[in-house]
Amino acid sequence: MNFASDNVLGASPKVLQALLDANEGSEPAYGVDAHTRRAEEMLAEAFEHEVVVFLVATGTGANALALSALTPPWGAVFCHAESHVLDDECGAPEMFTDGAKLVGIEGAGGKFTPEGLAAALERYPRGVVKAVQPSAVSVSQVTEAGTLYSLAELDAIFAVAKPAGLRVHLDGARFANAMVALGCSAAEMSWKRGVDVVSFGATKNGCLACEAVVFFDKALAENFQYRRKRSGHTVSKGRLLGAQMVGYLSDGHWIDNARHANRMAATLAEGLAAAPGVRLAWPTQANEVFAVLPPAADRALKAAGFRGAPWSSGSLPPGFTIGPDEVFLRFVTSFATRPEHVAGLVEAVRAA
Amino acid sequence: MNFASDNVLGASPKVLQALLDANEGSEPAYGVDAHTRRAEEMLAEAFEHEVVVFLVATGTGANALALSALTPPWGAVFCHAESHVLDDECGAPEMFTDGAKLVGIEGAGGKFTPEGLAAALERYPRGVVKAVQPSAVSVSQVTEAGTLYSLAELDAIFAVAKPAGLRVHLDGARFANAMVALGCSAAEMSWKRGVDVVSFGATKNGCLACEAVVFFDKALAENFQYRRKRSGHTVSKGRLLGAQMVGYLSDGHWIDNARHANRMAATLAEGLAAAPGVRLAWPTQANEVFAVLPPAADRALKAAGFRGAPWSSGSLPPGFTIGPDEVFLRFVTSFATRPEHVAGLVEAVRAA
Amino acid sequence: MNFASDNVLGASPKVLQALLDANEGSEPAYGVDAHTRRAEEMLAEAFEHEVVVFLVATGTGANALALSALTPPWGAVFCHAESHVLDDECGAPEMFTDGAKLVGIEGAGGKFTPEGLAAALERYPRGVVKAVQPSAVSVSQVTEAGTLYSLAELDAIFAVAKPAGLRVHLDGARFANAMVALGCSAAEMSWKRGVDVVSFGATKNGCLACEAVVFFDKALAENFQYRRKRSGHTVSKGRLLGAQMVGYLSDGHWIDNARHANRMAATLAEGLAAAPGVRLAWPTQANEVFAVLPPAADRALKAAGFRGAPWSSGSLPPGFTIGPDEVFLRFVTSFATRPEHVAGLVEAVRAA
Amino acid sequence: MNFASDNVLGASPKVLQALLDANEGSEPAYGVDAHTRRAEEMLAEAFEHEVVVFLVATGTGANALALSALTPPWGAVFCHAESHVLDDECGAPEMFTDGAKLVGIEGAGGKFTPEGLAAALERYPRGVVKAVQPSAVSVSQVTEAGTLYSLAELDAIFAVAKPAGLRVHLDGARFANAMVALGCSAAEMSWKRGVDVVSFGATKNGCLACEAVVFFDKALAENFQYRRKRSGHTVSKGRLLGAQMVGYLSDGHWIDNARHANRMAATLAEGLAAAPGVRLAWPTQANEVFAVLPPAADRALKAAGFRGAPWSSGSLPPGFTIGPDEVFLRFVTSFATRPEHVAGLVEAVRAA
Repeated sequence: MNFASDNVLGASPKVLQALLDANEGSEPAYGVDAHTRRAEEMLAEAFEHEVVVFLVATGTGANALALSALTPPWGAVFCHAESHVLDDECGAPEMFTDGAKLVGIEGAGGKFTPEGLAAALERYPRGVVKAVQPSAVSVSQVTEAGTLYSLAELDAIFAVAKPAGLRVHLDGARFANAMVALGCSAAEMSWKRGVDVVSFGATKNGCLACEAVVFFDKALAENFQYRRKRSGHTVSKGRLLGAQMVGYLSDGHWIDNARHANRMAATLAEGLAAAPGVRLAWPTQANEVFAVLPPAADRALKAAGFRGAPWSSGSLPPGFTIGPDEVFLRFVTSFATRPEHVAGLVEAVRAA
Repeated sequence: MNFASDNVLGASPKVLQALLDANEGSEPAYGVDAHTRRAEEMLAEAFEHEVVVFLVATGTGANALALSALTPPWGAVFCHAESHVLDDECGAPEMFTDGAKLVGIEGAGGKFTPEGLAAALERYPRGVVKAVQPSAVSVSQVTEAGTLYSLAELDAIFAVAKPAGLRVHLDGARFANAMVALGCSAAEMSWKRGVDVVSFGATKNGCLACEAVVFFDKALAENFQYRRKRSGHTVSKGRLLGAQMVGYLSDGHWIDNARHANRMAATLAEGLAAAPGVRLAWPTQANEVFAVLPPAADRALKAAGFRGAPWSSGSLPPGFTIGPDEVFLRFVTSFATRPEHVAGLVEAVRAA
Repeated sequence: MNFASDNVLGASPKVLQALLDANEGSEPAYGVDAHTRRAEEMLAEAFEHEVVVFLVATGTGANALALSALTPPWGAVFCHAESHVLDDECGAPEMFTDGAKLVGIEGAGGKFTPEGLAAALERYPRGVVKAVQPSAVSVSQVTEAGTLYSLAELDAIFAVAKPAGLRVHLDGARFANAMVALGCSAAEMSWKRGVDVVSFGATKNGCLACEAVVFFDKALAENFQYRRKRSGHTVSKGRLLGAQMVGYLSDGHWIDNARHANRMAATLAEGLAAAPGVRLAWPTQANEVFAVLPPAADRALKAAGFRGAPWSSGSLPPGFTIGPDEVFLRFVTSFATRPEHVAGLVEAVRAA
Repeated sequence: MNFASDNVLGASPKVLQALLDANEGSEPAYGVDAHTRRAEEMLAEAFEHEVVVFLVATGTGANALALSALTPPWGAVFCHAESHVLDDECGAPEMFTDGAKLVGIEGAGGKFTPEGLAAALERYPRGVVKAVQPSAVSVSQVTEAGTLYSLAELDAIFAVAKPAGLRVHLDGARFANAMVALGCSAAEMSWKRGVDVVSFGATKNGCLACEAVVFFDKALAENFQYRRKRSGHTVSKGRLLGAQMVGYLSDGHWIDNARHANRMAATLAEGLAAAPGVRLAWPTQANEVFAVLPPAADRALKAAGFRGAPWSSGSLPPGFTIGPDEVFLRFVTSFATRPEHVAGLVEAVRAA
């Protein structure tokens, strides 16, 4: 079983069926088909707010496009020093924003603090012409360390960001996993906190390729259709995206998937933490487990056919070091993870 | 029946089945899955040449990315004055090339001539620092007027382009339709003529969202993986694209689809041309029919449930004018077009 | 004598003296020095309007920066098909606008017409997502053909541009020459017509390197200081630019220079037109003469030490053709042109 | 006396005279005039190497253009976390490189270490598609803290950079001050160490507006003329730049100016360090003094008509803190600083 990521799988059966069901008949192209319209309505319901929605096929596209609506080329976007937008998209945000600067803020456990943001803001004073101008903050929820900002932590960050004139982006590649883990609503994790635009990920949690850029303020989205088109992210047969999103949101499927994945991760974390010589780098709060293993355990799980992703990070807890022989791995669970997979992995490690 | 475009449909049954078949199991993400690998092999077979292939979900993405590999930001890309890259992609090529200039060349029937290219080249002399530098030529095959360059016509254009140091891009959004119509091989319509990179369209001809950027020269593709990633066009669950392309290329499905669509268009063109008061703007060479209709015919076909796309063009044949009451429509046929649709449309027009 | 351009010279004595006078003492850097402040006041006086002014060292910088304030990256800027911004700046406007499209409009004598603009607008309908969006029009005054738009002609163009939502840029590399020739005020040639921003050239008419981007609407200039800085066009020792502009505008120096240059051009045009075998391509309305000469005349003026610039153009008058042996040259006069230079050139041509 | 920067002054008398001497006569435009040609020769002599030189008017232009020749848009440029290119140019490098990422490396005293560079390189592995690709390193000499890298320190950094495939840029806004302080030749501080391109500053050390981008490898400079032109940095009356550089380099003027400025700074540093309650943040190695003063001293020097620039920095020495009442100022000396200015400033501070 491959635990390296939640994108090593295909679509969940419900999403796949939605795609099949939508295949017949003719629909207008370029995102104005009935399936996409329905997806937009369902997202408005899910967020309990009027929304302007743009479906795209990739998370990098969603993030880079979203940020481009929040900053001019001479702007600064504040984010965690290990965030996906900063380090894992080959400069996509810089391309889409025509050269804005992503300012990384260090912070343990994949999270930066209000104080960290305040300090970063001081380096780029508004109105000082040589400095890029503070424009946006991007928060990842789930973070790169598999952790979560509590709603209070988000409030504290936004209490610094908003008076500084920053727009707020939430990178929700694992939005559902975070929401379910926090036990809050989509609204409570977004516009009720002050989020201006969400990259609402659906691919990792059951779709094949579907992400939504969700705006709560129509004005911000004014020219977004041109941005999407000129970046090549307007899919012609829009039903591909619309149908996936409808399937994903129907009957609480997205929530069921996330809840299941989180539970599997909790079980896996518990099992690994109890194994001799195994340590977790961060608490498992959503569907990712970051574990440091003795080499024998690493060999054993490989031999048993399990895969994690080799990891490294600069935001380990203070004092947490990894020995030269130890192996640092990420394990990600998903809608497709079965309890027996988890048990098998834990057993392999324990036996080592 | 909607004849407005070939992207108002879903996937062909064979492509859809391939997608279903590929859904199970885990695969590495980001375009190195087994399905994508197989698609790459099949494209090499189809082109009878070693190729470097990048699958993406949209034609605009494919074109803009392909051009970005052929020109520096201070370069000129020569293309037809009504080409898709110039006028129908909201400036995507300019975004991806970081500001290169697309130089439109006028020409009747959607085609420019070697002489037109030579004249355009004179305006941008190599080494003159104030002039953008001649870098590439982009040829659409099928053209925006539904016409085709003969192989001899391509040779004549490339005989001007190559000595001028231009790289050659072929916008093959309807590659299969063109190839089938010319009765040539993929190789004969591409690298054997001197084409450096093809935007190989599959979406319109049976896929849901799948295009391949096909390079024949490895060196040209050297950094393309970074270009694709930073533009957000690297799909994480790569099987989505790989499986479609495998289904599309298997058992000559792409050729069957194109041949069928072309035949339907020929029948439609014949029927419309014979209808009183109807004129075709250009010969129907692939799967598009451009017809000028009397208003009554337009009303009649709408009443009968048929749709075409309102059209306008600056490359009408000399002397061909459209009266103020006449209606200019494009009709596109596809794998899903049935003879009875065509017959019905023609009948509705004739009856008017 | 070198008549190839008006930038083959140094500064006029008055401008040079102003530079000398400003050299002593300390001044704050980056464009907030006393000289620049004075230049800003003088430009407000010259234009009889509140202005926001940004001095830069080059005309390409001024034009590209000005356009970048008028269009988003997905915008279209309409201009003459042979305009400097389109063809003589190596793609600078594309770089500064992050990829906007410059749409060239053909027109005889370097001028496009309201009808030409209206036709171009039709190709890029507002709100159609595949089309770049109409954003600005750029008019060159003096044109690339050395001709002038009359105030009525400007009115007619802007009467099409303004209702279409276009912002108006005036490329005034030879602003003074045009103004003097039309016998109007700076205000009458700019904001009173509807111009939003002027590239106010001073280099060619007496400065060493000084151009002003002049905004009449503060809101348009809002972020311009960041645009100028991040393009490297904010000179640290700002007095260099401020002092030149002060010297240029003092005591009507700019007007005197332009009047003199225009007079010299008129004399030259008259003389050349009267020479056997010589034809002028366009009327001489400012300080440029475009002449077609027999080869013997070309040889004779070279032998006598005179230089013009070899020329070519696609906007020659209907029916005006240039023989294979004839030589097409541009002659530009300036503040430094002496009557005896003109007489000598004419004499050399006549004698041939 | 204004010690806030070395760009609050005009030109040195010798540079001004060179400008005057070059004003007469006609010269070809756009950087191919005799003065520029002479400047290029003199730079080749100064660097004892064949060079390809591009003169521009601003340091930001020089830096951003230089970097754009060293990195693709998907590249990473490593530099100090407080370097000018990273934080003081409003994103110019991002604009000119079309979105490359500047990766800041922390380090005390304005200098980063080979270990710091090695660690930064690990975050961006070559060939990993999600990571921007390591492309260049930029070293400031003099640094933002007024300190210098020794030649051995440069060697150590480049010993990490070169095997990693990085090109090397040296930001020499105060090149002469650094060279004189190190007692080495221009060659020893550049190509002999492995530097590929230098931003050779002349403005701060005596010119009005003149910087040279100096390449030692012709191939790297191949397309630089187009980069300069399309960024608007090709001055039409090129003599403005050529003449300044000729005056600057003639008779060792640049070295004399730098030596004088450095001496004045050393005297100032000594005087301030000896004043009660005053501390220097970093050693004074070139022409900048960074001092922490008691509030009374700050008031006294202002009252006496002296100005420094308020400063802040994240690279203070470990344990060096600044009290809430203390004032942190930068003082910069130049060719125009007189011993009596220095004595007066020191006296004012001492008396407080």
